[in-house]
Amino acid sequence: MSPDAGARIAVLLDLDAAQEARLRDGAGGAALAFLGAPTEDAPPDPRFLDCDAAFGNPPPCWIDAAPDLRWVQLESVGFGEYAGLDLDRQEGRIRLANLAGFFAEPVAESVLAGVLALYRALDRLIPLQANAEWVGDPIRPTMRLLAGRRVTLLGDGAINRRVAELLAPFGCAVARLARAASTADLDAALPQTDLLVAAVPDTPQTRGLFDRDRLARLPKQAVFVNVGRGSLVDEDALADALESGRLAGAVLDVTEAEPLPPGHRLWRAPNALLTQHTGGGTADEMDRKIEFFLDNLARYRAGAPLRSAVDFERGY
Amino acid sequence: MSPDAGARIAVLLDLDAAQEARLRDGAGGAALAFLGAPTEDAPPDPRFLDCDAAFGNPPPCWIDAAPDLRWVQLESVGFGEYAGLDLDRQEGRIRLANLAGFFAEPVAESVLAGVLALYRALDRLIPLQANAEWVGDPIRPTMRLLAGRRVTLLGDGAINRRVAELLAPFGCAVARLARAASTADLDAALPQTDLLVAAVPDTPQTRGLFDRDRLARLPKQAVFVNVGRGSLVDEDALADALESGRLAGAVLDVTEAEPLPPGHRLWRAPNALLTQHTGGGTADEMDRKIEFFLDNLARYRAGAPLRSAVDFERGY
Repeated sequence: MSPDAGARIAVLLDLDAAQEARLRDGAGGAALAFLGAPTEDAPPDPRFLDCDAAFGNPPPCWIDAAPDLRWVQLESVGFGEYAGLDLDRQEGRIRLANLAGFFAEPVAESVLAGVLALYRALDRLIPLQANAEWVGDPIRPTMRLLAGRRVTLLGDGAINRRVAELLAPFGCAVARLARAASTADLDAALPQTDLLVAAVPDTPQTRGLFDRDRLARLPKQAVFVNVGRGSLVDEDALADALESGRLAGAVLDVTEAEPLPPGHRLWRAPNALLTQHTGGGTADEMDRKIEFFLDNLARYRAGAPLRSAVDFERGY
Repeated sequence: MSPDAGARIAVLLDLDAAQEARLRDGAGGAALAFLGAPTEDAPPDPRFLDCDAAFGNPPPCWIDAAPDLRWVQLESVGFGEYAGLDLDRQEGRIRLANLAGFFAEPVAESVLAGVLALYRALDRLIPLQANAEWVGDPIRPTMRLLAGRRVTLLGDGAINRRVAELLAPFGCAVARLARAASTADLDAALPQTDLLVAAVPDTPQTRGLFDRDRLARLPKQAVFVNVGRGSLVDEDALADALESGRLAGAVLDVTEAEPLPPGHRLWRAPNALLTQHTGGGTADEMDRKIEFFLDNLARYRAGAPLRSAVDFERGY
């Protein structure tokens, strides 16, 4: 079926009635199949296999099995799980679009929230409050300021560009390393870093980049923030560094395994703050995703280039 | 004893050996009596009664009882407890200096930390982490952004001036009300406020200013922040508003009673974040206070105007 004909679209999201209505309304004559969010190991839904477009994140094997599929609008920025697929296949090329830039504001605000929570002792004050336990003055000498810190931003995408803007009034010395920066540049920057904010995708270059040796290059007072993908860091080495006090803290929105298993060391590592991959969350998140999809649907029907088309070569 | 002679100084602070040495060193020929921080109801220390200057916050009755006392360098910004004293007394006028402006950076950072913690759900994520409990996605639709909020800053001192600077990149609509603003101005601003930050001292004008009626003027989505003095707000009315959901949240660095009693309603009020009067804390807080005192000591000895001399008429 050609892109300009009435599309058959699988919607792989858990939506409420108003959101379904908005999609029906915005999608004009398209045939929408509301299938809900699939689990990772679900077998392909037969209704999905009939579709030529999808909105949401199908398990990769579903894509292989759908002969008419021409476009998948992911509801995420990350797309590493689709890297192994043959999208230029014989049955017809599949275009993949992600939500690049979509989460910059919420994630950047969550970065600042997490860092300030550690610096201003909220990670201790909130549990004290749960016990109605007043400590007060003895906490004060343990508190730190963000003002004047040396910050290294790893990744030069929309998130870290926004983090840099939010940091401006704090008068930090900010070093920005694009993902293309050499590991030698990174290694030179780490010992001069009080706060490292990593916002890079999962690629062969970033996977395991923060191994034990590289983590050890950060000074003792440093705080390590990861809002990209959990694969960036050796989590055992990170837990060791936090437990031994060789690293002052970590704010982790992402982990290698999500959900993080109940017995995982990072749950209890001192001065770690785990935000459970909520960094991009906002009350109107799904509504904004729907508008993004409808905008790309118009482009798809017009045969125009998609917004945020994925480039596997670049890795984003 | 005249100010330019060797001073006898009571130090009412809990200091470590290095801090005592720095004071001795910086104070030249002064006779220093290290008495530690007194409790509120302690009887006057006889060594205090001999002194002509003090560094720290003596119980008010001690000041009345010390005939030679000419200068008290408080270690706080607040000085409401000294308002009833006769400082222009027959025995010789007592000058009082506070630490106005001293806490602007740490308190402003704590304000941002607290507000972002509520908006970015850290008040729920941190207790979940303590239980190694993953919730993840269902939290996302409950999260809010600071960007674009309508902010009212009550109090135009160093703290709120710094808060305004830190808010700049968030693109908030910021209304600034000096403490001298009329209650009519305040009442007009409240219904248009998503975030109220109060940083005003305890004065007859501010005491009880946020009564039940005034709190009710804030919209349902508003967050109330108080980093001045607990006397500003009717705490029962505030707890009612939080419990009933008529107010979205509160960040309280100060409360009417400190320590807050274990059974107090605010400990458990939903979406309240209590920071136990730590907002001004930093690792080098005491060292900075000592430098501030030594600077004023030089002025005192030279008979020059003191830095941050208290003006009871203005109330700051």
